[in-house]
Amino acid sequence: MNKLAVAHYLCRITVSGSLLFLIPAIVSAVYGEWDSVRVFLEVAAGVALVSAPMAVIKPKDTDMFAKEGLVVVALLWVIYPVAGALPFWLSGQIPSFIDAVFESVSGFTTTGSTILTDIESLSHGMLFWRSFTHWVGGMGVLVLAIAILPANKGTMHLMRAECAGPQVGKLTPKGRTSARTLYIIYGVMTIVLTVLLVLGGMPLFDSICHAMGTAGTGGFGIKNTGIAFYNSRYIEYVLTAGMAAFGVNFSIFYLALTGHIRTALRNTELRVYLIIMAVATVLIMAANRGIHSEFSENFRYAVFQVSSIMTSTGFGTDDYALWPEFSQMVLFILMFIGACAGSTGGGLKVQRVIIMFRSVKKFVRQTLSPKCVYVLKGEDKSMDTTTVHGVQTYFILYIGLMLISLLLVSVDNFDFATSFSSVVTCINNIGPGLNRVGPSENFHMFSGFVKIVLSFDMLFGRLECLPIIIMLSPSVWRSKF
Amino acid sequence: MNKLAVAHYLCRITVSGSLLFLIPAIVSAVYGEWDSVRVFLEVAAGVALVSAPMAVIKPKDTDMFAKEGLVVVALLWVIYPVAGALPFWLSGQIPSFIDAVFESVSGFTTTGSTILTDIESLSHGMLFWRSFTHWVGGMGVLVLAIAILPANKGTMHLMRAECAGPQVGKLTPKGRTSARTLYIIYGVMTIVLTVLLVLGGMPLFDSICHAMGTAGTGGFGIKNTGIAFYNSRYIEYVLTAGMAAFGVNFSIFYLALTGHIRTALRNTELRVYLIIMAVATVLIMAANRGIHSEFSENFRYAVFQVSSIMTSTGFGTDDYALWPEFSQMVLFILMFIGACAGSTGGGLKVQRVIIMFRSVKKFVRQTLSPKCVYVLKGEDKSMDTTTVHGVQTYFILYIGLMLISLLLVSVDNFDFATSFSSVVTCINNIGPGLNRVGPSENFHMFSGFVKIVLSFDMLFGRLECLPIIIMLSPSVWRSKF
Repeated sequence: MNKLAVAHYLCRITVSGSLLFLIPAIVSAVYGEWDSVRVFLEVAAGVALVSAPMAVIKPKDTDMFAKEGLVVVALLWVIYPVAGALPFWLSGQIPSFIDAVFESVSGFTTTGSTILTDIESLSHGMLFWRSFTHWVGGMGVLVLAIAILPANKGTMHLMRAECAGPQVGKLTPKGRTSARTLYIIYGVMTIVLTVLLVLGGMPLFDSICHAMGTAGTGGFGIKNTGIAFYNSRYIEYVLTAGMAAFGVNFSIFYLALTGHIRTALRNTELRVYLIIMAVATVLIMAANRGIHSEFSENFRYAVFQVSSIMTSTGFGTDDYALWPEFSQMVLFILMFIGACAGSTGGGLKVQRVIIMFRSVKKFVRQTLSPKCVYVLKGEDKSMDTTTVHGVQTYFILYIGLMLISLLLVSVDNFDFATSFSSVVTCINNIGPGLNRVGPSENFHMFSGFVKIVLSFDMLFGRLECLPIIIMLSPSVWRSKF
Repeated sequence: MNKLAVAHYLCRITVSGSLLFLIPAIVSAVYGEWDSVRVFLEVAAGVALVSAPMAVIKPKDTDMFAKEGLVVVALLWVIYPVAGALPFWLSGQIPSFIDAVFESVSGFTTTGSTILTDIESLSHGMLFWRSFTHWVGGMGVLVLAIAILPANKGTMHLMRAECAGPQVGKLTPKGRTSARTLYIIYGVMTIVLTVLLVLGGMPLFDSICHAMGTAGTGGFGIKNTGIAFYNSRYIEYVLTAGMAAFGVNFSIFYLALTGHIRTALRNTELRVYLIIMAVATVLIMAANRGIHSEFSENFRYAVFQVSSIMTSTGFGTDDYALWPEFSQMVLFILMFIGACAGSTGGGLKVQRVIIMFRSVKKFVRQTLSPKCVYVLKGEDKSMDTTTVHGVQTYFILYIGLMLISLLLVSVDNFDFATSFSSVVTCINNIGPGLNRVGPSENFHMFSGFVKIVLSFDMLFGRLECLPIIIMLSPSVWRSKF
């Protein structure tokens, strides 16, 4: 591996990444929270200083291949959350360093699981920073760097490593243009959502935080009672629609904006995504009749929770732990399915589920008529075996990691539902789970070891396993090429 | 599909299958349970009479292809358990028909989950019948038929549909000879186990029942307190070794018996199987130090439970629900792995786990060096893509069915651990699960609907999905060819 090039590239990105800390510093200043301002500025300066030397010195050989790209992405996703934890820890607002890292990983990976028992005790600057990590992590820290930094060769396959899904289409031939287009759509949508929330009577600060949490499909709230705090149908429906929108492949919006609305609406993944949401809502409404007897109330809570869980956001308006087991299991299955590929959402992604379903169907047919040749259909064109095989292998890795994590998390001796759902919710970047990590609970009671395991799960889920595995394989580091 | 040939073949097998009921009739007669004798004889006569006409009339076209074979196997596995439920129900010893079917499916599929709250209230004949279904189901109802019936073409691919695992080697070129060899090894091993148990002071009747339950890796006991009733180290160690032996691929025994002991011991699956058992035992012993402070006691309980769960038998000597969560999760993961391919055990099978692990490893390597060609190693030879693809697709089906079943089982509104583990234990043909279906509990409290769902899960697991899916697809029934 070209270690010098990796280090150089990493440091260039982290130097520019240090600018991110200036935004919460400004927010803190607005609220006169000078302690927070000082902490954010110190962290910004520290990060910039540490990474500056390697960023300035350009190594002779700057060639980067797939291996180097994956390692850069994986390391970025360790460095950013650790640096992002420093403000929480240095300000004393989250006294334990491991807790601060967990919170920051949860932020950047857009999981939204928290260790805070009293969210409202945080300063405005810190609350903003939590939600801001969702916004940055949602589209990707690397994509942001590519959008900002001067053009560099080989950026496209770097972007692919960070963008979610098996077949993320290129928007434009150039990585940098794609990155900018993505961030522009993303930014405009976030602003629109903020305005809609303000129009519903939500304070500006709250609106910005929730819009960023929705855009990244993260789910950190700023109130102890979550979205239920505002008790407004309008706000809930705006967020329901907002979450659903950010769970859609961004290429669809790009197509729609460039006038190809028909092509956009013909997209199979989009259709399946919406159908699953509709079916899940109906199933939950049927099971919840006993709890919410009024139809409109029943719909309101069901559709919000479905949109929140399927897009892997994790906001809550109703404590689903009190729902019938059937409704909870519908949500549990949505956790696995997740949002669309190429969105900010987590989970397996609807596209992978479609590919897996089709591969099973093909397999059954092939068994019945061994001599026929069946072709797997992708979006518009037939799908190559490598993609299908990749999806299947990813699924095996994903379930395997889940079982190993379950074993490690069980050392804390919590009940099965707590241990298992905490792994499922972290690996799929959702936020809440079942039982003691349910919507009205949090992750504070886990030991440091388990918090680290769950942090790795969040990273595995966000980066879809491969970069992290490659970063952790000694053979990659030993190899010269 | 050639429906006439399917019906003819099915009826020929069920006519001979009616003879099975004569054995528990003899046992009942020995104990003077004349009510049971009458019931068994009635059922035997009924089954024989119903299937006789179609068995006698031979259709013009008796050609059977893969499709027909799979449908025959699937239907056999519905007919046998339903017929097998009749003695329980008609004798009034299990008053509910659905309960009787659940018990019988659990028996034939060698699951061992029971709905009985007082096992000891059953007559000797019925207790024998329960354990006997394990013995017949373990090696396969069709394999038995092939061993007994006159030779027929195409039996080999019929056998393959019933034998577990991705790559079950042929013992001999002819299906019928293979079937007989299998049953001879199986029978001799069962007799040896019975003798060993009798030598340990277990009554003859109990020894026969437990030997059959072990041979089929089923796990039905005949005492309310399970194997703990005998409170004998010797018996426990004999059963530990017995269960482990029946979890091994029978080809290994065939190789060993025909003098190829070295080849047998070089088998990768066997080695991995034993290593996993050893590691699991050590992990559980480490976690259980607090419960069983004495080393030998700790080892005794841990190794028994590991052998019992990994081979999917499900006997118990200690209530693992009282063990630390970590130990329970080790057992939970063993439930997924299961025994060796080509054994009577359930689960995914060690061989599939090895293939999946290797395919993931290959995938990671391929990503790092896209231009290299990696070959997946199988036992001795390289593995073709179809096998690997088949294993991966099977895994997707397996997890998919598990999630759908979880949703259906949750309508009974039991807690997550109960619902989820009941599905896992049934689909892997283990027996006990966690919480309310734990080792000291049973399945009586589920609704009829859920019992039917779980019965299907047991069949799916035993037949490895495909035959059942094909039986349930309308297109197969509509097609003429």
